[in-house]
Amino acid sequence: MSHSKGDRHAAVVEVNSSTTPSPITSAGAGTGDSLVPQVASSKKNVAWNNPTGLTPAGPQGSESLARERARATFDVKELTLLLHGEKALEDDRKVLEVLENNPAFSKADIYNQSRTERYMSAAARGKLMHDICKEKGWGDDMIWRFFVMMDEPGPYFLHYSMFKPTLIGQCDDQQKAKWLPLADNMNIIGCYSQTELGHGSNVQGLETTATYIPETQEFEIHSPSLTASKWWAGGLGRTSTHAIVVARLILAGKDIGTHTFIVQIRSLEDHKPLRGITIGDIGSKYGYQAIDNGFMLFDHVRIPRENMLMRYARVEADGSYVRPPSSKLSYGTMVYVRASIVSNAAKNLARAATIATRYSAVRRQFTNAEASKDDTIFNSFEPSSPSARGPETAVIDYPMQQARLLTRISQAYALSFTGQAMMTAYENLQVDLAAGNISALPEVHATSSGLKGLTTDMACAAMEDLRRSCGGHGYLNNSSFPAFIADYLPNVTYEGDNYLLTQQTTRFLIKAFGQLQKAAAANKLPAASKLTQSTRYLLEATKPGFFSERWGVTTQADLSVGTITKAFAHRAGSMVANLASDLARKTQTWTGAQLDIYAISKAHCQLVVLENFAIALVDLQKTASPALVAVMHRLFKLYALDQMQQDIGSFAPYVDVPTHLPLIRAAVREILAELRPDAVALVDAWNFSDYLLNSTLGRYDGKVYEALVESAGREPLNIGENFEVVSAYKPYFQPMLKAPLKSKL
Amino acid sequence: MSHSKGDRHAAVVEVNSSTTPSPITSAGAGTGDSLVPQVASSKKNVAWNNPTGLTPAGPQGSESLARERARATFDVKELTLLLHGEKALEDDRKVLEVLENNPAFSKADIYNQSRTERYMSAAARGKLMHDICKEKGWGDDMIWRFFVMMDEPGPYFLHYSMFKPTLIGQCDDQQKAKWLPLADNMNIIGCYSQTELGHGSNVQGLETTATYIPETQEFEIHSPSLTASKWWAGGLGRTSTHAIVVARLILAGKDIGTHTFIVQIRSLEDHKPLRGITIGDIGSKYGYQAIDNGFMLFDHVRIPRENMLMRYARVEADGSYVRPPSSKLSYGTMVYVRASIVSNAAKNLARAATIATRYSAVRRQFTNAEASKDDTIFNSFEPSSPSARGPETAVIDYPMQQARLLTRISQAYALSFTGQAMMTAYENLQVDLAAGNISALPEVHATSSGLKGLTTDMACAAMEDLRRSCGGHGYLNNSSFPAFIADYLPNVTYEGDNYLLTQQTTRFLIKAFGQLQKAAAANKLPAASKLTQSTRYLLEATKPGFFSERWGVTTQADLSVGTITKAFAHRAGSMVANLASDLARKTQTWTGAQLDIYAISKAHCQLVVLENFAIALVDLQKTASPALVAVMHRLFKLYALDQMQQDIGSFAPYVDVPTHLPLIRAAVREILAELRPDAVALVDAWNFSDYLLNSTLGRYDGKVYEALVESAGREPLNIGENFEVVSAYKPYFQPMLKAPLKSKL
Repeated sequence: MSHSKGDRHAAVVEVNSSTTPSPITSAGAGTGDSLVPQVASSKKNVAWNNPTGLTPAGPQGSESLARERARATFDVKELTLLLHGEKALEDDRKVLEVLENNPAFSKADIYNQSRTERYMSAAARGKLMHDICKEKGWGDDMIWRFFVMMDEPGPYFLHYSMFKPTLIGQCDDQQKAKWLPLADNMNIIGCYSQTELGHGSNVQGLETTATYIPETQEFEIHSPSLTASKWWAGGLGRTSTHAIVVARLILAGKDIGTHTFIVQIRSLEDHKPLRGITIGDIGSKYGYQAIDNGFMLFDHVRIPRENMLMRYARVEADGSYVRPPSSKLSYGTMVYVRASIVSNAAKNLARAATIATRYSAVRRQFTNAEASKDDTIFNSFEPSSPSARGPETAVIDYPMQQARLLTRISQAYALSFTGQAMMTAYENLQVDLAAGNISALPEVHATSSGLKGLTTDMACAAMEDLRRSCGGHGYLNNSSFPAFIADYLPNVTYEGDNYLLTQQTTRFLIKAFGQLQKAAAANKLPAASKLTQSTRYLLEATKPGFFSERWGVTTQADLSVGTITKAFAHRAGSMVANLASDLARKTQTWTGAQLDIYAISKAHCQLVVLENFAIALVDLQKTASPALVAVMHRLFKLYALDQMQQDIGSFAPYVDVPTHLPLIRAAVREILAELRPDAVALVDAWNFSDYLLNSTLGRYDGKVYEALVESAGREPLNIGENFEVVSAYKPYFQPMLKAPLKSKL
Repeated sequence: MSHSKGDRHAAVVEVNSSTTPSPITSAGAGTGDSLVPQVASSKKNVAWNNPTGLTPAGPQGSESLARERARATFDVKELTLLLHGEKALEDDRKVLEVLENNPAFSKADIYNQSRTERYMSAAARGKLMHDICKEKGWGDDMIWRFFVMMDEPGPYFLHYSMFKPTLIGQCDDQQKAKWLPLADNMNIIGCYSQTELGHGSNVQGLETTATYIPETQEFEIHSPSLTASKWWAGGLGRTSTHAIVVARLILAGKDIGTHTFIVQIRSLEDHKPLRGITIGDIGSKYGYQAIDNGFMLFDHVRIPRENMLMRYARVEADGSYVRPPSSKLSYGTMVYVRASIVSNAAKNLARAATIATRYSAVRRQFTNAEASKDDTIFNSFEPSSPSARGPETAVIDYPMQQARLLTRISQAYALSFTGQAMMTAYENLQVDLAAGNISALPEVHATSSGLKGLTTDMACAAMEDLRRSCGGHGYLNNSSFPAFIADYLPNVTYEGDNYLLTQQTTRFLIKAFGQLQKAAAANKLPAASKLTQSTRYLLEATKPGFFSERWGVTTQADLSVGTITKAFAHRAGSMVANLASDLARKTQTWTGAQLDIYAISKAHCQLVVLENFAIALVDLQKTASPALVAVMHRLFKLYALDQMQQDIGSFAPYVDVPTHLPLIRAAVREILAELRPDAVALVDAWNFSDYLLNSTLGRYDGKVYEALVESAGREPLNIGENFEVVSAYKPYFQPMLKAPLKSKL
């Protein structure tokens, strides 16, 4: 901590702009020196360096994290393997190696770029990714890994995520043979354009028309009003040459409803918009800086008949319409998408928890010997000089902070097990559908709808509170929170608005319950084993005495996976039965009952999450080490009991609030203390690379303060034409500063 | 809705860059034409226009809003006057006139600028504001109105908000005479620098030292480590010439603790950092784009002794220290700041509610005749052509949306009454302190601490859900939500972290309760009238039988201001009494009880909010019209009952959940229906100008879709060098698009 006068100025160096920035690797950057950027990765030629010799006071972050990691009661590698699988880990390593070693993929200046610069940079990186994968013979699965790690939905994102899958899913064989090779080779760049300025959720209200003209065997795509403008499609605004457009099919003056069409929108010669197409970017957004979400208006644009995607519905040359075999065949895709959203919710939650937990172990504030009683660093710390102050308590050692961190960690694990279960349900469904059996579809569709809502809401709330748990520094863009939270927020709105989705879930449950009630009345109730997992609990609600049942828990020891799950099952069953009764007696209408519908979907889906977690625990008992099973068991209970205490009123009267709430709260406290030693290990297990995290606060090596200082050195306001004196000085500050005292203009 | 082929391309015009953009005025922009920008306010010379003749389909937004406004049951002007007062409204009008009529203050391109451009623009505007106010003889009160309406904390913001007030509050008369005129005239630009890289909440842990050197009668300011770096001060990074620095006073080797010093940091000649000072911007943040929050390290920097602010504590020339008369004198300022934060929370909540409520009246989706039964526009709408589809239901007519909007509106009003009450408490406190009477201080300080936490948390949660209630378009920056939410988020962290503040509140309550218990034991309980408002309820908790009391509500009609407030009072009293008992019996430690401490502070402050609202209702009964009083009464009940139903478990067993929750829910439904006709009027009353809102969705005239389209026309990716073909095409898209099929690199 010693230094000499004048060092500070000498440390500001001028560097050659051709030096490449040092990437932040996941193996830890070693000494402080390697954190010093050689140059801001742009044309500016002056950078600011961390003044010579200064280091953080107090226990070093890397020490704190090492200590934390040594406390773990289980094997992190075992859990990492469980979460990801060997192949995924290996593939991720291959992709990470490319990303970390090619300066073109450096994220060092992402937060310092304007939106236009972000878009251009993402366009360059996406092309580079395409070229690299082509060269290595890597397929779309590897491209997805690039996307995940680059963490920057860019101009081509929808080409991979929506355009190609839709071609695969909705083109007939002839169309696939024509379009897929072009799409795979990026000879066309596509997007998927459904939403309009005036219609999002109500797909049946879309205004864009596709009128068949038998004389020329063409469709005429047209926007009849301003609100018909396509709006929001990613990659549409400036990038794509083609779009899959959802439009109302008009045959001989009759409106057949919405269908999909592939429309060329830009010239393959010079990329100019084709005649009749008005197109552009819709403007900047909360997140998604690097992608061009677009608007598009059609002025009588003609496309060949063959451009209607015709795997299911068809329009023949004479204009006759062939119905699709079943309207429900596309639901499979929707289920897949929702399963992905649930898994992604878990990952984003885990990402936020990783940063916040590591930072909480590094950050020390105030001195609280009671809180620090298990902190060997605190208890053995000796200040390096008489004037240096004593050790402070690591923020992670405060009970409130532990509650915030560990409950969110438990949520990430709970959601990841449900994500896995949903993917399995989707795969089983696909097998069924291929065999023409759609019996499982209604329940899978209903549950996946509600789960999409529950998990994305949970993830958003968790991510923002985890950001706040990092105090002031969580507000910096280089913490990474603002960008990835803002990028995540659309999850509660797209692929089904979360509030609206609850209607689909609850509608199914009310119907299923009604069928069970009829069967009960006719003495023909099916055996529980014949019912699907997520409707079994409804059986109980048909039985007399159901509403008089009370929770059989009298002590903390009675709180088991079984008893806790039963409380959730009784709550959901009661809610469904009560609404069904209200609807039958007409004391509520469906529209009037929106708040109940919302609550029921949440309750049902929370039960599903618990059941999936319980099933996973049973599987783990067979395959995992006892230490890991014990930790997972604690996470189950923490997750479930925390959900209960947050919403205890909804469990009454089955649960007796005055008796049971204190039990639950005491149990939560105990589990928090039991899980405390594993906090850092539980987030390390998710294995987020420093490259992906791109967070000063969440670095694996805990060098938070060094990273914050280094990042400041790359801020455009500090360098280049702003170095030493900001360019606002001459025109704006100077006239005021040098104005005579008491002068009047 | 008719048009002709080819119009779309013709509508893209090239315009002269010298034409000024048309500002969006609060009086409504009239026809669609005036929404068309004449030019992007920059060097680019091509703009995109709304294609000729296209208008939104369905009922027009302006019609929907006019209909909503006609339904109001009270006089909006009366409520506006109540909220603001005549003088404030008049002053706002004067400032708005300047802002709307000077193109330099146009907000049209704010979301299209890079951070550096935002900073430069704010520097320019702040100077212009200074010059204008100087010319007009307008003082700091008017400058504040500029800041509020420009809504863009810029480089000089802390000069007004922290630097000058601190000079006034902590300089002795000699120092004031020296520094204030310079500060008032902007001959110096100042900031306030307390927080360091390693210390925020724990002010006593700050590392920067100020060592007195009697030989030269100077202090030497020094940063002993990296974490000592000042960090976060707004205006520090690039702008300020002077800083008030909080540093540890070292006298003759003894650490006296933190004091404040004024330090010149940049040359008044050429703005370069002075010797020994390393300084810069800390990097971009979630919000606050236009202000340069800074870092600063001192390398043995000397300042004259007279630069220590010496109104209270003093250091004489010989190095002897004069203690401040009382350590609590600066608490008055803290209370004032917290009162402002509470009022500001109300305003931000109201701002979000204004946008969301107006948009919800304009936005129509799905057709639901039951929900639309009171919508005369829906019920009389005739589509303008056979192919145009029928009317859809305004989103505001869905029960779930009403619940989201109206509960937040009730929160805005509840918080505004508490903000007013806190300001009155502050003024009374100042009178007391001037007379040397600090008896009221502990309670006012404790309650204002907790209220700061409660209200900012409430506002943040409300603002984000209101943003989501606007669906997809709420994600656009031009909705204004992302920027003003991101700018608001620091409120939960600065001026006291919300979690930490609860400790101050609860500590006071436990102490007050302990004193009452002692008095009760000695049979010397004071009369209720002798107790302050916010401790009166604790009296009840000392009485035998308190815990056996039950809520005397059996029907909905029993739910009155009195009975509802009683439930909140019993809850808070129970919580305090229970924790006090746990602490006394040592079944909990203070540290271990952090979650209870948090809950108690919330419960206490929610009671205070209700009590302030109840008092305001009584005052209104004397001064306001009966219609307005009735509306305010409904808002009280909605606010309070919604808070109850969200956290009903915490009211048990005084409240019996199975019996009372259905009553509460039914009452909430009724009140929502009663308040429905007043939704738009209740937000109009806040009188936010379109200039301040700067929101495509929240325009007074409801021309949402036209505004969205116009805003897209100014996106940099659409114009200038990106017009027609984006500049990413040639280097990145073209090589891929034109690559031979199946080529290998």
